[in-house]
Amino acid sequence: MSSRPEPIYDIAQLGHAELLTPRLEESVAFFTEVYGLTLVGEDPGRAHLRAWNDDILTSLTLTGAPEAGLGHVAWRTTSPQALERRVAALEKHGVEGTWHDGDFGHGKAYRYTGVGGHIQEVYFETEKYVPPPGEAPALPNQPQRFAPKGAAAARIDHINLLVPNVAEASRFQQEALGFKLRERLAPAGGDEVGAWLSVMTKAHDLALTKEPAPTTGRLHHLAYAVPETSDVIRAADVFLENDVFIEFGPAKHSRTQGFFLYVYEPGGNRVEVFTGGIHIFAPDFETVTWDTESKGRGTAWGLGVPESFHTHATPPFGGAPA
Amino acid sequence: MSSRPEPIYDIAQLGHAELLTPRLEESVAFFTEVYGLTLVGEDPGRAHLRAWNDDILTSLTLTGAPEAGLGHVAWRTTSPQALERRVAALEKHGVEGTWHDGDFGHGKAYRYTGVGGHIQEVYFETEKYVPPPGEAPALPNQPQRFAPKGAAAARIDHINLLVPNVAEASRFQQEALGFKLRERLAPAGGDEVGAWLSVMTKAHDLALTKEPAPTTGRLHHLAYAVPETSDVIRAADVFLENDVFIEFGPAKHSRTQGFFLYVYEPGGNRVEVFTGGIHIFAPDFETVTWDTESKGRGTAWGLGVPESFHTHATPPFGGAPA
Amino acid sequence: MSSRPEPIYDIAQLGHAELLTPRLEESVAFFTEVYGLTLVGEDPGRAHLRAWNDDILTSLTLTGAPEAGLGHVAWRTTSPQALERRVAALEKHGVEGTWHDGDFGHGKAYRYTGVGGHIQEVYFETEKYVPPPGEAPALPNQPQRFAPKGAAAARIDHINLLVPNVAEASRFQQEALGFKLRERLAPAGGDEVGAWLSVMTKAHDLALTKEPAPTTGRLHHLAYAVPETSDVIRAADVFLENDVFIEFGPAKHSRTQGFFLYVYEPGGNRVEVFTGGIHIFAPDFETVTWDTESKGRGTAWGLGVPESFHTHATPPFGGAPA
Amino acid sequence: MSSRPEPIYDIAQLGHAELLTPRLEESVAFFTEVYGLTLVGEDPGRAHLRAWNDDILTSLTLTGAPEAGLGHVAWRTTSPQALERRVAALEKHGVEGTWHDGDFGHGKAYRYTGVGGHIQEVYFETEKYVPPPGEAPALPNQPQRFAPKGAAAARIDHINLLVPNVAEASRFQQEALGFKLRERLAPAGGDEVGAWLSVMTKAHDLALTKEPAPTTGRLHHLAYAVPETSDVIRAADVFLENDVFIEFGPAKHSRTQGFFLYVYEPGGNRVEVFTGGIHIFAPDFETVTWDTESKGRGTAWGLGVPESFHTHATPPFGGAPA
Repeated sequence: MSSRPEPIYDIAQLGHAELLTPRLEESVAFFTEVYGLTLVGEDPGRAHLRAWNDDILTSLTLTGAPEAGLGHVAWRTTSPQALERRVAALEKHGVEGTWHDGDFGHGKAYRYTGVGGHIQEVYFETEKYVPPPGEAPALPNQPQRFAPKGAAAARIDHINLLVPNVAEASRFQQEALGFKLRERLAPAGGDEVGAWLSVMTKAHDLALTKEPAPTTGRLHHLAYAVPETSDVIRAADVFLENDVFIEFGPAKHSRTQGFFLYVYEPGGNRVEVFTGGIHIFAPDFETVTWDTESKGRGTAWGLGVPESFHTHATPPFGGAPA
Repeated sequence: MSSRPEPIYDIAQLGHAELLTPRLEESVAFFTEVYGLTLVGEDPGRAHLRAWNDDILTSLTLTGAPEAGLGHVAWRTTSPQALERRVAALEKHGVEGTWHDGDFGHGKAYRYTGVGGHIQEVYFETEKYVPPPGEAPALPNQPQRFAPKGAAAARIDHINLLVPNVAEASRFQQEALGFKLRERLAPAGGDEVGAWLSVMTKAHDLALTKEPAPTTGRLHHLAYAVPETSDVIRAADVFLENDVFIEFGPAKHSRTQGFFLYVYEPGGNRVEVFTGGIHIFAPDFETVTWDTESKGRGTAWGLGVPESFHTHATPPFGGAPA
Repeated sequence: MSSRPEPIYDIAQLGHAELLTPRLEESVAFFTEVYGLTLVGEDPGRAHLRAWNDDILTSLTLTGAPEAGLGHVAWRTTSPQALERRVAALEKHGVEGTWHDGDFGHGKAYRYTGVGGHIQEVYFETEKYVPPPGEAPALPNQPQRFAPKGAAAARIDHINLLVPNVAEASRFQQEALGFKLRERLAPAGGDEVGAWLSVMTKAHDLALTKEPAPTTGRLHHLAYAVPETSDVIRAADVFLENDVFIEFGPAKHSRTQGFFLYVYEPGGNRVEVFTGGIHIFAPDFETVTWDTESKGRGTAWGLGVPESFHTHATPPFGGAPA
Repeated sequence: MSSRPEPIYDIAQLGHAELLTPRLEESVAFFTEVYGLTLVGEDPGRAHLRAWNDDILTSLTLTGAPEAGLGHVAWRTTSPQALERRVAALEKHGVEGTWHDGDFGHGKAYRYTGVGGHIQEVYFETEKYVPPPGEAPALPNQPQRFAPKGAAAARIDHINLLVPNVAEASRFQQEALGFKLRERLAPAGGDEVGAWLSVMTKAHDLALTKEPAPTTGRLHHLAYAVPETSDVIRAADVFLENDVFIEFGPAKHSRTQGFFLYVYEPGGNRVEVFTGGIHIFAPDFETVTWDTESKGRGTAWGLGVPESFHTHATPPFGGAPA
């Protein structure tokens, strides 16, 4: 036990993500009216949004683009010193990133391409949300008033990226950034096709899944959390009434044990409404390996995974989204 | 921002608590049949229990004693090195503790009396729960089968200790152990009468409340978490059917925003069934100060706090429990 | 058993209620923005509203008036013939009512003063809700789109009237209208102070409670149902954020076992958000009598009843609402 | 509207069902330990069970038999007179039934073969559940103590029978017994393949589905209700841990809008855990017709129906259960 390296707590959370959308206006309407986020800023071709329980000013930027996909994903560090440590570790790992002065809602950031081809950032300085006058929440330990709209997504939770080599990308996140590998899927003892990693005590902040197409940098999905199962159920009713395509769920994941619901936003990106999931308080939690013999291979209660869940990603590869 | 010290992540979680009870047999029956824990070990005068979602082997020891109260509370560190750092910090803080070789379920521990008079321990080496043959859970990322009994308490969550000087005890937990002060209650700008502290991302692992009597070392309550609000509601129905005295709740706390339910176990100790609560991912979360002017002073929705909640603690002071 | 008269199924449901309010505009804003109803019609001094799961066009009329209170309450019969039977039974019972041609949303009705002094109506012909073009719900077995706003009250459920003589008013509803007496509260074997009556299989459509003041015709509360406990919890958060006075709850009733939440609307009338409650399928259900010895005298889990719940009613008696 | 016949309220509820099982002992173990019923009586080859919220003594009899299937289903009337009226109507409809003196838990009953080939009974006299000494529930308006075990099924809810001619069997239940046709499924304007009928205000007490095989009298499923969605979710976790085959769900039906979960008991019969569903208070509710163009054709949120749901029934036809 003494030979186990000390766990690293340099990354605090998934800070924000930038989604690209070919239908910016419709995507903004979806995320504000149906998914339930709040618009907090706009600049040409971009909209900045937040969830009512996000502590940070903005957790999602929508950027108009020819194709859907991930602009970038950003990890907030636990301190300025932690940021320096992570940049040093990234560079030691061979990453060649660049500093920039920040963007809407946050300060200086180190931007690089992760193993697997996605643009990532690490940063510390962030702007917190300050409610407008007269809009303070009733409880001061809550960042924003609870004025539920649509699915009322509560806070940014995790992101799932497709990568050509899951084991390699997983190792990169662990070694350079201190992510902990919580669960992995390796059918029949073969190559890893899925990895679930977290930075603190959640079941996952990042999932890595095997990219089925000969390409890189694609997004599988971005997830926001809601407080309870009943909120996911309610979200399903909201999506139904708003003609949003429900791809998968509500149901319970085997990995993470989260209760999930996946839909496509108008730009084509898959987004999830998520709740629950195991909490991992043990600092020496042993990575759980799932194979094809494990019960609950697809989902906890046996629901099959739709084919599109394995093939649809953004940007689409060789054609329109499934 | 640069002058803020780096957050410390040396304590992983509330590891276990020892409750004293003058009615050991009845307390064991309550905790196993009604509260829903599992008995995992016994030695003369003591019973060791766990919740189905605890990763560690045991989170609660019940010890027969003339009076109810807290035997000790133990914090698990994130690594052996973290344990050494915390012991050094404790001793630097003037604590005079002693090492012992461990106990049922865990290895060597440093035992000391905290500011406020409670016996505390820090330790790292722990035994994990291994299900008996044929009793493995269906999902391998879960420590124990889900075979709900009674309130089906899921995992140890937090403890609330009465202390003569809240500010001083709070400072001790922060400085010596790296606890983060999340919320504090200081009516009319006066002395702190409540402090909510956490070690990682929870709303609290430890609450400190002003001791009303001229004594030290008393327990206000020990709390286990359940997954959702519906589980707390169900627990209330279970307690009702089992003639367990429900003191307070189900309702929503203002501080922490947790959904709570307090009952007395047969020995007289107050125990809580808890769910929810804010998650604190921001490493620079600003402590929230509540005063008498704050909305939601007592509970979130306005429910009054029963008098006994301010006076009953264990061991009783100058008489039987209220 | 053979001597028991056959149950009567001539009343189908609580059709609608008219609430008087001295602050019509604010009351309309509350019921639409916070309580979650939909405005479906207005005429001078009146607003007609419905809940998203009401089958009928309107279930609530708000009428501007000098004082808060009940305008009238209306029971829909199961057929035109049932309407004739009930009018005959009412007149046999000594009631002197009058027919009118109907009102917004319904056809001809027989209006009378019930025992206890409230204006009641019985009627059959009703207008159903027809969604506007483009606003059809996704599921055709649902009357209106689910577009949740605020507490998202789902359908009219029951009404509670204060009456000087509970036993006499209860007998009137049973004998003249075929209500079934489900539960009654008679402390220490004395006079009835509460009666819960239903027309079909619900725990209650009408509650009668002892009027504490020397007056008649007052309203205790009007209740709408939501689907589940989680909706009541959410409603509490919504009321908290909107500075609505929460008088009592969320908690569980002893009588009916419903899960409840009481607030005051801006006009001063008490309104409830309600869910659950026992279902009574047995045609020979024996009336449950509660006395002071019964467990769960006040509420199921022991929560005390606030004093205002026994004294506040509309119109206020001898002064402003408590 | 005046030409509509008056609705009939002669059937109060689905009283009980008898399931045949080739594995009686295992079936009893499943229904008591996992599904959560209580054994209240046994005679050779038979076991009588009840759910904790059933008012009647027993709602389910398990009878050992070479093959799984339905023994009989029984409808309780609202009065002795209603029983006489229904027998007269049945005989007018050409049914040739026989009276018997009753069975465990109920008095004299008229037994006949319904259109579609299932043995049905109508009866009025029933034995109510009386808790054993010391086992009275805390709340006297509840028949039995709440001591949740496994899925904790709460009360018998509805039954689904396969019939060769849905329209004809549906007409029989309406005309002879006063069932109300709430919803029907008739793809592309063709023959009815599903009918949902209720006796009082529920979405359904009886569903009739097109029999795919050249046989009669088969059972599709028997359903018990639980209070809320969270109870269905919990049931799924319980079934998972107990290696019970989950065929379908948890998800939301389009028809009835109930939240469902289907499993097979050890004898091979399909049983459901059900909650919610629309309430139908309108006495003139218009039957909803679903066709292939209707949204939510299979399930409310789009989940596909597994093939076995269309083919598996009991007794199996031409082979073992799918």
